[in-house]
Amino acid sequence: MKKVVIIGGGTGNFVTLSGMKKHNVELTAIVSMADDGGSTGILRDELGVLPPGDVRQCLVALSDSSLLMRNLMSYRFENGNLGGHSFGNLLLSALEKVTGSFERAVEEAGRILYIQGQVLPVTTNKVHLKMILNSGKILDREQDIYLSKEIDQGYKQIFLDPEPKVNPLVIDAIYNSDLLVISPGGLHTSIIPSLLVEGVSEAICTCKAKKVLVVNLMNRIGQTTGYRVSDYFHEVVKYLGKDVLDYLLVNAKKPSKDLIDTYSEEGEIVENDLQDPRVVMADLLGPIVEKSKGDLLVRSLIRHDSEKLTKELMKIVDRL
Amino acid sequence: MKKVVIIGGGTGNFVTLSGMKKHNVELTAIVSMADDGGSTGILRDELGVLPPGDVRQCLVALSDSSLLMRNLMSYRFENGNLGGHSFGNLLLSALEKVTGSFERAVEEAGRILYIQGQVLPVTTNKVHLKMILNSGKILDREQDIYLSKEIDQGYKQIFLDPEPKVNPLVIDAIYNSDLLVISPGGLHTSIIPSLLVEGVSEAICTCKAKKVLVVNLMNRIGQTTGYRVSDYFHEVVKYLGKDVLDYLLVNAKKPSKDLIDTYSEEGEIVENDLQDPRVVMADLLGPIVEKSKGDLLVRSLIRHDSEKLTKELMKIVDRL
Repeated sequence: MKKVVIIGGGTGNFVTLSGMKKHNVELTAIVSMADDGGSTGILRDELGVLPPGDVRQCLVALSDSSLLMRNLMSYRFENGNLGGHSFGNLLLSALEKVTGSFERAVEEAGRILYIQGQVLPVTTNKVHLKMILNSGKILDREQDIYLSKEIDQGYKQIFLDPEPKVNPLVIDAIYNSDLLVISPGGLHTSIIPSLLVEGVSEAICTCKAKKVLVVNLMNRIGQTTGYRVSDYFHEVVKYLGKDVLDYLLVNAKKPSKDLIDTYSEEGEIVENDLQDPRVVMADLLGPIVEKSKGDLLVRSLIRHDSEKLTKELMKIVDRL
Repeated sequence: MKKVVIIGGGTGNFVTLSGMKKHNVELTAIVSMADDGGSTGILRDELGVLPPGDVRQCLVALSDSSLLMRNLMSYRFENGNLGGHSFGNLLLSALEKVTGSFERAVEEAGRILYIQGQVLPVTTNKVHLKMILNSGKILDREQDIYLSKEIDQGYKQIFLDPEPKVNPLVIDAIYNSDLLVISPGGLHTSIIPSLLVEGVSEAICTCKAKKVLVVNLMNRIGQTTGYRVSDYFHEVVKYLGKDVLDYLLVNAKKPSKDLIDTYSEEGEIVENDLQDPRVVMADLLGPIVEKSKGDLLVRSLIRHDSEKLTKELMKIVDRL
């Protein structure tokens, strides 16, 4: 069975894993640990736990348990002091407290949810993602970066603080993989944070796996305003340290003008400007759904279709 | 296999069920739904759910899952807005929200925890336990009754508001039982509330099962000050409507004087004053443990020993 590693944040990984799970591949999700917004951020601040939100989404994507259990994991309390917390986040945080280890917590939650495959936090150190903007302004938390409207004005540096140790299982998984997929998601808040963990990019660059970048469908205004496929490509290659990408999966299907207009305040379509044989253009456009970034519910952008994306990825798997 | 029904609140049922579970009997726990203190009270107030705390304790007692899972269910968050909530309570409340039914929630939690036997809420209506004291003062919630120091001055009335419908499965379980055990616990806050639900006492009185009252070890000052075995007996019979008890299990072993002194501000030993062949005197004295009433952590009183209690109950089962 081919080994496929999916790397990114919660939502992008969720879409990719949900589709790939239906195929005969061995899946590993490598999850960014920089999230500090929403329910996840509150749990980090109040309980001192590692961020559960992105891991939870990957566990649910890989779960073979009942629909009820998957709904339970994603259920958000609506009222009172629990308001906004998803039950799955509380499960992971309670398991971390009871076992004394986030890795054990993820393993146990995986057992409870009968997951197929494995979910690996990229690090189990407590880190915050920080960014120094060109203006000199320092953004101290991932959530501040996520909400900033100034990143498209340029930034000097993005880094994890303190510098974390990589989870060694992540390095093993990358070296043993046949296909490595960088999921779509927030470029600076979901994709780059995993590449910033020492050893990850080196492993990606030197492993034998075919490497695919799934390019985002939409730019977020103030974050990646005006980005085209080449910008995503160059930014990812910059943090990989080397151009080792074998494929860039790019959406070919434009949303309706109505939809583009509806979302024009939040985002814009990513246009392809690359003349490169590695670019695979395909209809990857999914339905409109409520989007959560980390655990903060924001309005939906247009999202990848899990099945269409999987179809393209499986074409690559089948050629391996 | 003999069918044994255990009726009462969370902690007393927990002790009884934990021991009985090791024997070859078919167990049903019938749980009072009057609790409104601590984590349970907050969840009731904020989320509008049914009280999870006592049910959780019974589920854990009957669970065949790993020690880790049982510890997880009993784990209490320590900090922040989650502080004081036990994870198991949150599981039951989230399941109630996701399934839309407390009974389904209890069933599903039972499945997750691989319970042996069944746990039945005595009612699935939302009720509060109320008491009118002799002084005319009205205690509006179970928690107020639990914390009152005036109940030993006498009360006019204790009732559930609104008057609830009994869970029909409870009536079936009582009629099908071979042994019915009234667990130890708060007389007015854990034992009587189940008997107040219409149909329960009638079923107990007319069912074929042998009926055992496990008499409390200790009186709580201000609640049952000065009560002797006959007082517990008469009070329970009053709410049963008829003297149908076949056995009264009474502790024969005095705690050390040191222990009695230590706990003298909170409680006093229950002395036996009944000359009745139904009274079974035995050493039932357990270790000192932290006590929680409902979900409010209070200092420990002296508790029944699960194994010693079970040994006496099994003698009765073996004679059936």
